[in-house]
Amino acid sequence: MSDVNRVWRLRKRPVGDLTDDVLSFEKEAIPTIEDGQFLVRLNYLSLDPTNRIWMSDQDQYMPPVELNAPMRGLICGTVKSSKNSDFSEGDIVSGLGVWADYQVGNPQMMNKLGDTGPMPVVDAFATFALVGPTAYFGLLDIGQPQEKETVVVSGAAGAVGSIVGQIAKIKGCHVVGIAGSEEKCDWITKDLGFDVAINYKTENVAESLAKACPNGIDVYFDNVGGSILDACLKLMNIKGRIPTCGLISGYNESEPVPGPYNYGMMLMQRVRIEGFIVTDYAPRFPEAIAELGKWMGEGKIKVRQDVHDGLENALEHLKMLFTGANKGKLIVRVEDA
Amino acid sequence: MSDVNRVWRLRKRPVGDLTDDVLSFEKEAIPTIEDGQFLVRLNYLSLDPTNRIWMSDQDQYMPPVELNAPMRGLICGTVKSSKNSDFSEGDIVSGLGVWADYQVGNPQMMNKLGDTGPMPVVDAFATFALVGPTAYFGLLDIGQPQEKETVVVSGAAGAVGSIVGQIAKIKGCHVVGIAGSEEKCDWITKDLGFDVAINYKTENVAESLAKACPNGIDVYFDNVGGSILDACLKLMNIKGRIPTCGLISGYNESEPVPGPYNYGMMLMQRVRIEGFIVTDYAPRFPEAIAELGKWMGEGKIKVRQDVHDGLENALEHLKMLFTGANKGKLIVRVEDA
Repeated sequence: MSDVNRVWRLRKRPVGDLTDDVLSFEKEAIPTIEDGQFLVRLNYLSLDPTNRIWMSDQDQYMPPVELNAPMRGLICGTVKSSKNSDFSEGDIVSGLGVWADYQVGNPQMMNKLGDTGPMPVVDAFATFALVGPTAYFGLLDIGQPQEKETVVVSGAAGAVGSIVGQIAKIKGCHVVGIAGSEEKCDWITKDLGFDVAINYKTENVAESLAKACPNGIDVYFDNVGGSILDACLKLMNIKGRIPTCGLISGYNESEPVPGPYNYGMMLMQRVRIEGFIVTDYAPRFPEAIAELGKWMGEGKIKVRQDVHDGLENALEHLKMLFTGANKGKLIVRVEDA
Repeated sequence: MSDVNRVWRLRKRPVGDLTDDVLSFEKEAIPTIEDGQFLVRLNYLSLDPTNRIWMSDQDQYMPPVELNAPMRGLICGTVKSSKNSDFSEGDIVSGLGVWADYQVGNPQMMNKLGDTGPMPVVDAFATFALVGPTAYFGLLDIGQPQEKETVVVSGAAGAVGSIVGQIAKIKGCHVVGIAGSEEKCDWITKDLGFDVAINYKTENVAESLAKACPNGIDVYFDNVGGSILDACLKLMNIKGRIPTCGLISGYNESEPVPGPYNYGMMLMQRVRIEGFIVTDYAPRFPEAIAELGKWMGEGKIKVRQDVHDGLENALEHLKMLFTGANKGKLIVRVEDA
């Protein structure tokens, strides 16, 4: 065990696209633990759109990261030493932590990952820690898709979107995914079983959607907001649902972003738009993990991770989320568990 | 019975503010009825924001009025002759009809008003035909206010909003109304029992709202959209609800209207935004009418009508809705029932 701790700290709030000066990468001492605490060695760091929200001081669902504090992230790590009877050396934990080699674990924010069976820890972390339950509860609890209904998902080749579409197929829906490259469109239709894929970078989304959804849209799972949300609103069926998981198209904007121009369709078609944050469902995670695990075992849900080595590259990789350069769940590997 | 029928016909689709040339007022022959039909003499015509929607060809919840067709409206009238065994001469009916002295009643679109007891027909029509059920189902079914929660309503001195606020008081809520004159603000607080009124024409709505809602907003009943919606979104509590009844601030706009700039608060605060059209609740109208009637009898709900004589003035009066010049439910009286 090295005696140097590498820590990413937030130095300024981002304005517009992420720049290198928002975070700094520091060498610091490894923290010591007190009674009730435990020390975690970082194995994997999850990179997610919400990182960008936490860096800013916009209104958000938990306090933003304070300036000069370590950057917050969803992490998976190994307990190295413990003065907390619930956590023992060698336990694999996941939850909210910071971008650092070593950190004091917060027992309120971290859970033991448990036995992952034949599944590598990185896969279990990538799918079960957050994105799987996000897809599961957002689609099923908020979206409530019924058999034969049309489900559209944006960010469809992303970590959440790709699972949303596959769950919708399991539920017997007509599933249309919107993604940003031919490779992604091929993947979601040929490998994941989506019925139609729309490449928003090369196609007229409104026209392609109208063609792909001859019976209108019953559920639009929104990861992006912006013009794609507008195109979907135009096609919503009466009593349609728009579970809203993210609005990434606006996260890097420095000016106020207008809401959808077709907002009035929500009224005309009696649509329900509902935001959700997956941590609200924490008590029900075991349900989602059990179902997702079963479907993955049956080959009905496939996932892919986009794993990159080196904590020192985390900020560079985070930027990929906003250009769509990642292919699957973006993970930084520091040291395999 | 005169042998001249006066009919308002839609001549062009409005662009921006309502102008005199969108409708024309014609003298025509009284229609004749065939088997299964009945002839209705107009008593009262309801003027509502939705009239403006029906004149346009924007996406909407029923087909727009066709060019050169009689203008559609919510009417109350008396059956003058009938070849339909369900309707007899002298029956008072209400429902969807047209802006004309005489019209063929559509049995699918009209119901008998029934015995209104000591209540004048105009009052029963004004409250029970549409606005009362709109307030009732929108607030209770979609908004689901709980005791001690904060309910904000815009268009608070309007036909729907004034009833929404009073129902919310009956349910034990802290009720804040947003209206457009001192007279309206006085009326809703002193006569109707709202806790706070905000005059959006003279006050900074965001500041006044923050002061009036120290515990945030749990339910925002939206009649207007626009900047007031934005101000409310900023204050929504986690799991807040925004039943959406109207977006009148945008109806007279000729350019596309952006959605709320604070749309992202819906995600951060896990808010449910849901549009509704009261006619979807038609099978449950008796429930609303029974409850509203009881509350009115107990003096817990007060209503006021703004009744104007003369079918020939209908278009002029409709414009009042968009400047807020009306005081209460806007009704054109042609001949008392």
